[in-house]
Amino acid sequence: MVFTVDIPVRWVDTDALRVVHYSNYFRYVEAAEEELYLSLGFTFKELNERHKIAIPRVEAFCSFKAPARFGDIVTVTLRVDDRTEKTMKYSFKIHRKSDSESLCTGYLKIIGLDLVDWKATALPPDIMDRVEKALE
Amino acid sequence: MVFTVDIPVRWVDTDALRVVHYSNYFRYVEAAEEELYLSLGFTFKELNERHKIAIPRVEAFCSFKAPARFGDIVTVTLRVDDRTEKTMKYSFKIHRKSDSESLCTGYLKIIGLDLVDWKATALPPDIMDRVEKALE
Amino acid sequence: MVFTVDIPVRWVDTDALRVVHYSNYFRYVEAAEEELYLSLGFTFKELNERHKIAIPRVEAFCSFKAPARFGDIVTVTLRVDDRTEKTMKYSFKIHRKSDSESLCTGYLKIIGLDLVDWKATALPPDIMDRVEKALE
Amino acid sequence: MVFTVDIPVRWVDTDALRVVHYSNYFRYVEAAEEELYLSLGFTFKELNERHKIAIPRVEAFCSFKAPARFGDIVTVTLRVDDRTEKTMKYSFKIHRKSDSESLCTGYLKIIGLDLVDWKATALPPDIMDRVEKALE
Repeated sequence: MVFTVDIPVRWVDTDALRVVHYSNYFRYVEAAEEELYLSLGFTFKELNERHKIAIPRVEAFCSFKAPARFGDIVTVTLRVDDRTEKTMKYSFKIHRKSDSESLCTGYLKIIGLDLVDWKATALPPDIMDRVEKALE
Repeated sequence: MVFTVDIPVRWVDTDALRVVHYSNYFRYVEAAEEELYLSLGFTFKELNERHKIAIPRVEAFCSFKAPARFGDIVTVTLRVDDRTEKTMKYSFKIHRKSDSESLCTGYLKIIGLDLVDWKATALPPDIMDRVEKALE
Repeated sequence: MVFTVDIPVRWVDTDALRVVHYSNYFRYVEAAEEELYLSLGFTFKELNERHKIAIPRVEAFCSFKAPARFGDIVTVTLRVDDRTEKTMKYSFKIHRKSDSESLCTGYLKIIGLDLVDWKATALPPDIMDRVEKALE
Repeated sequence: MVFTVDIPVRWVDTDALRVVHYSNYFRYVEAAEEELYLSLGFTFKELNERHKIAIPRVEAFCSFKAPARFGDIVTVTLRVDDRTEKTMKYSFKIHRKSDSESLCTGYLKIIGLDLVDWKATALPPDIMDRVEKALE
């Protein structure tokens, strides 16, 4: 199982080459991650406020194959790639919805961060179980 | 007296019309405001943490005359337009540095916000005196 | 008749005050404008490529009343406020979907821009008729 | 030899965790790349318009170690890591200027893109020689 979200390219996402600026693909992936968590019933905010944990990215990688343009809808697909006690690695693919052309692929690795002492900590296992179950 | 800051247009600031996206002029003005405060020896952060005050915008207006493009350096000029106990209104002008062409003009009105109860509050008078003195 | 769009606040839209950065409300309004045009069957891109016209903003104003936060869905409402041969003025309101709290109100004035000589020109009347009819 | 640029963290760059949003480090690196090219006497724009070449990113990677916050100045360091006829790989490091704490490291690989047929093409060797010479 994977999680997919459709995201319309906004005018402001484009640059003077008339394509989406590469940094915005990372933002599309984060939007997909936010929607994933919402679909499972929790948010970054609850992690912060209830669990006193944040989940910053420790690694981000993307390989760009073709550009998205204004007017495109891009589809982001997330999958769990690897999981440890403290980290979760998501692989992602983004394709253009209209013709399924692959635009980019990559991964994000998140880590549990204890907001009291700002040190690495275990990701909440019940939440990550739900994520893993939803994505595998 | 006015406060001026030069800001290089970044590639990511442009859009598919090959000009700076209009929302970014507001960001340039905010960068100038940040540099103004720094030049006077304080930051948003200190206002937040020491004074428990934030200074959100309550009004923003801009009239756009000509576009900036990648490669331009834009000059932001700030001036105090009006001041009350709780608000400060800055007028701004942005021109292209190379040929002095006027790009846009507008204003921002900021308000003191008490971060304990999230209600409007007086702006710290000593700080605003310094700002006003620097800009008039 | 008005046009409304729901937009989820993204984490990246927030700032260190834990609220949406004010410049992003202008981006939410533009997203609504893009969805409006799509719903009527055209895009900025087609205006650019077929009509050789762009529709840059000549004025933007916003009055901010309350902050949106991560986790909120904001609803943008667009209405035609005024129309001339070369300009169209949209008024907008943004409220939080969950409790209908008003977050901000303002307007945008767009102008027809001839992409051949970069001078002001008439907005395509057939397209603007459709917009006006949809919004009034 | 390396190329370094100091960049002040802007308020808008931060997110609700009160740290710089991770996507913005890629934007800081691009700002450094723009300044590098400027220091060598050319711009993305000239590449586009004179050489009919763009230099999109084909790969981007970043490992995040510590967060930057509002008020920080970050120093971006660029180095040429690898060069082929069509690609150039820059490695980058970002540290906080005040205490030299390492914030992140990564790389970007750019490719020559022929703007006539949108296919991969050789990077202009004279320009890349200048870049390589400046960075090694």
